[in-house]
Amino acid sequence: MSRPRSPTDPFAAWPKRNDANFVALTPITFLAKAAQVHPDRLALVYNDARQSWSETYARCRRLAAALALAGITRGDTVSVLLPNTPPMYEAHFAVPMVGAVLNTLNTRIDVALIAFQLRHAGTKLLIADGAYGAVVEAALARLDDPPRLVVANDPYEPGGRGLAGRDYEDFLAEGDPGYLWRHPEDECDPIALSYTSGTTGDPKGVVTNHRGAYLNAIGQILSWDMPDAPVYLWTLPMFHCNGWCFPWAVAAKAGVNVCLRGVVPPIVIEQIRRHSVTHMSGAPIVYDMLIGALESGDAPLRHTVKAMLAGAAPTTRTLHKGKQVGFDITHVYGLTEVYGPAAICTPRDEWRGAGDAERVRLNARQGVANIMQESMIVADPKTLRPVPADGETLGEIMFRGNVTMSGYLENPAATEAAFAGGWFHTGDLAVMELDGYARITDRSKDIIISGGENVSSLEVEEVLSRHPSVAAVAVVAKSDEHWGEVPCAFVELVAGQDVTARELQGFCRDHLARYKVPKAFVFGPIPRTATGKIPKFELRSLANKTAASTPPPRTAV
Amino acid sequence: MSRPRSPTDPFAAWPKRNDANFVALTPITFLAKAAQVHPDRLALVYNDARQSWSETYARCRRLAAALALAGITRGDTVSVLLPNTPPMYEAHFAVPMVGAVLNTLNTRIDVALIAFQLRHAGTKLLIADGAYGAVVEAALARLDDPPRLVVANDPYEPGGRGLAGRDYEDFLAEGDPGYLWRHPEDECDPIALSYTSGTTGDPKGVVTNHRGAYLNAIGQILSWDMPDAPVYLWTLPMFHCNGWCFPWAVAAKAGVNVCLRGVVPPIVIEQIRRHSVTHMSGAPIVYDMLIGALESGDAPLRHTVKAMLAGAAPTTRTLHKGKQVGFDITHVYGLTEVYGPAAICTPRDEWRGAGDAERVRLNARQGVANIMQESMIVADPKTLRPVPADGETLGEIMFRGNVTMSGYLENPAATEAAFAGGWFHTGDLAVMELDGYARITDRSKDIIISGGENVSSLEVEEVLSRHPSVAAVAVVAKSDEHWGEVPCAFVELVAGQDVTARELQGFCRDHLARYKVPKAFVFGPIPRTATGKIPKFELRSLANKTAASTPPPRTAV
Repeated sequence: MSRPRSPTDPFAAWPKRNDANFVALTPITFLAKAAQVHPDRLALVYNDARQSWSETYARCRRLAAALALAGITRGDTVSVLLPNTPPMYEAHFAVPMVGAVLNTLNTRIDVALIAFQLRHAGTKLLIADGAYGAVVEAALARLDDPPRLVVANDPYEPGGRGLAGRDYEDFLAEGDPGYLWRHPEDECDPIALSYTSGTTGDPKGVVTNHRGAYLNAIGQILSWDMPDAPVYLWTLPMFHCNGWCFPWAVAAKAGVNVCLRGVVPPIVIEQIRRHSVTHMSGAPIVYDMLIGALESGDAPLRHTVKAMLAGAAPTTRTLHKGKQVGFDITHVYGLTEVYGPAAICTPRDEWRGAGDAERVRLNARQGVANIMQESMIVADPKTLRPVPADGETLGEIMFRGNVTMSGYLENPAATEAAFAGGWFHTGDLAVMELDGYARITDRSKDIIISGGENVSSLEVEEVLSRHPSVAAVAVVAKSDEHWGEVPCAFVELVAGQDVTARELQGFCRDHLARYKVPKAFVFGPIPRTATGKIPKFELRSLANKTAASTPPPRTAV
Repeated sequence: MSRPRSPTDPFAAWPKRNDANFVALTPITFLAKAAQVHPDRLALVYNDARQSWSETYARCRRLAAALALAGITRGDTVSVLLPNTPPMYEAHFAVPMVGAVLNTLNTRIDVALIAFQLRHAGTKLLIADGAYGAVVEAALARLDDPPRLVVANDPYEPGGRGLAGRDYEDFLAEGDPGYLWRHPEDECDPIALSYTSGTTGDPKGVVTNHRGAYLNAIGQILSWDMPDAPVYLWTLPMFHCNGWCFPWAVAAKAGVNVCLRGVVPPIVIEQIRRHSVTHMSGAPIVYDMLIGALESGDAPLRHTVKAMLAGAAPTTRTLHKGKQVGFDITHVYGLTEVYGPAAICTPRDEWRGAGDAERVRLNARQGVANIMQESMIVADPKTLRPVPADGETLGEIMFRGNVTMSGYLENPAATEAAFAGGWFHTGDLAVMELDGYARITDRSKDIIISGGENVSSLEVEEVLSRHPSVAAVAVVAKSDEHWGEVPCAFVELVAGQDVTARELQGFCRDHLARYKVPKAFVFGPIPRTATGKIPKFELRSLANKTAASTPPPRTAV
């Protein structure tokens, strides 16, 4: 039998959503629930300071109430210039509680960039750490209509009181700890605004939303099998894609947030030991530094720390040595536009039987979309047709799903280009391997075209990183009259080691096609961005300058 | 500074959702991802049969394609009358893949009820297990326009070929294993229709949706810290609220589904041992039976099984003995209208220090809304004002959140009543304890009012269950000329034990106020519904008949 059906809506006669059965998804609920179910559990540790989940919830509600009293409302932007201290954590809940958007400023960027972002974001209120006084004052002085300023004075930072302004604790104390926060009117309302450090032009403001933040926080938990009450160490800056949604994920599991002002290896190692840290995240450089410190002085960690790594593919050295000293590294991949890592190199059961080298190779790939992200494909950027899973055909990595930004703020042209054809285009070139796992060959702009042949800078870096004297390496294109471009390698040596460019070339020739062997080598510290990435565009310019003028010491060929 | 703002939409200038960043939530994606990431992992075990995740995905797509070929489309209902065999699991993905609604029929209900549900659901196609031939034929004979019939012939069931009709395997073989399923047009589209066995009147058809099923599947994983690759034993009927969303949850964790036709204690125990089962669910009766079997014959389980228990509050005996034989029981609470259990008695850290009896008492409560359900309150049913958290003031348990049904099919009056004031009203009376955990005192209809005093049947049952000779007990109201109602206890004794009504009354008097002591006792097997619940309305009628006519043997006072 059949009931009468509407031709346009077959479910017209069926019950629909209402106020009781549909509630906007927002990660704020994770905090409310942690405070309800585990009120006395430790939520935040920072040096000697301790905060339980009920205290943290009350403080976040106070801050939200104070923001509301200060006139902050739905649609406003609140910026923060804070290290990974408790106020930074609190802002991740309090700002969305009033329907405002959280803009986390990179603490290492310069005055001009801060001023640009505050202006572009239309920031109404800025919460800044007292230690950043000079930069903040200079940036605010550049604005016609500067935001209100609230200063978080860190009692654990000797130089922490370098900025005049309303004190964070006084500001917060004005607010009602019972403040009734509201869900977003629409779960796709913006929750955060994060500027990407593009290689050219002004930074773009990536807008993410409540629904995506909620789902990605859960996705992080599921990717990692993160259990109840994890102890999460904040080596990853929260200003970087909102700490990959971990501020919200740790609340969802009522875990402990171990706060850190910065990544100083002996302090990080001491905190891991003292708090029995279970989870942490960071770029390869973080792990490389910790591995170095653990190898040179300390004993290995007594327990295994689950470690997410993103920002660049891990080298064999990082994965291998990391395991030896106590890091169980999971390689994840993403970018600000997909809330940080939205893909994960999920280990498969059958990899257990693989040899060490093969397992490292498998784990260094970009993998698959995480469970909350609908899909990741490697496709022809024009036709959007997925490349065959042959491990050879080059395509661009693209994402589609709920863990994808809303778009770029006030930049419809960039937004439209990024979403051409209904997929988010990452700009990363990859192949799809036979098992359906993606492997980046290069950022499209990092490909070196030498004599008409494509050279993957990653492949050359991978080979060089295996040389026992090489601690870190970056390979970029250098202009060449004959070949168009040639590979140029920037190399940091292991302390106490010495090796010549000729020796490294010989090593490369043993493992690479001849046209892929770097023609130039630069020895010395490699510059890095605030997030630990190596800015290849800067190296390219350096490589070209180097070639044209006097070579720096130890540059050969 | 500030940008121009629309007075009605402060986010008017911000980027919005599009095809790349918004995808309808549906639990079908969990299957697609399990097949992508863990294609060769075991997905289903049924006797000697084995299916990997890639095989299961291909079979589900075949079934969906075959349904589409048979004319099933968005808005149609497909009913199934199946035990927990592979076809039942497959239907949970294949039916939603074509946009249709899955109606799981209780395999223990009678012909009239099946016919009613098929008619009310407007079923277009029925998949039935061959063993239910007589019932199915009789039910279809009652319909003017019977649905198409597909028969799943179970090779492991001797009486499995008792129904003529299109064979399930032949039907499925017609479909394309590469069938391109589509996401629901709206994530609030119905996914399932489940009839509740009301105490009076026709059953009501509870409509649940893709969004709720997706979120509750994840909620189950998070509640339990369910790790990667769990081994889930199907003691809980999938026809009961879609197995509390576990068909989808197990796919999300790429675990193993151990299928079972029914709950036969020695077989269940053998399957737990053979497959190293890690998780299972069921009503108290399931655990009581397994505890009985393990105590009387077998050794305790060699490993601990995480066990969800719902349907009724567990008694001290069940929690205590369960732990001894190897079940780590988590008490969850809910009803069909909230996708099964939507509340959980989450253990708190401080309970570890409590004594055994106190811990059992704490764990037997209904607890708090699970992480994906927005909230559960105990409130005055008229004013909707929450009762004080004093452990004494009675109120009704109400839910609000995404894990709440869309409503009752073609029953706007019941839907409206259930959602009065924007909350789903459960009909369960409870108090809110000081720690914010709810504790049911009684289903509202199960309260016994004796001489103007409210008697909680649960309290009396709890006391009687502690008597060493009592295996199971149910207490209901019996009409009484003097008191209005008096408690009447139905008691199953432990095998080989004997005890008189007078002895049990004495035991009750030691632990209860005098007016709460049952005035009548009925000894013998207690009737149970298909889902293992004790139908109190039936017992009430029995209690009253008993009093009016000749008392059955062993009834006293």
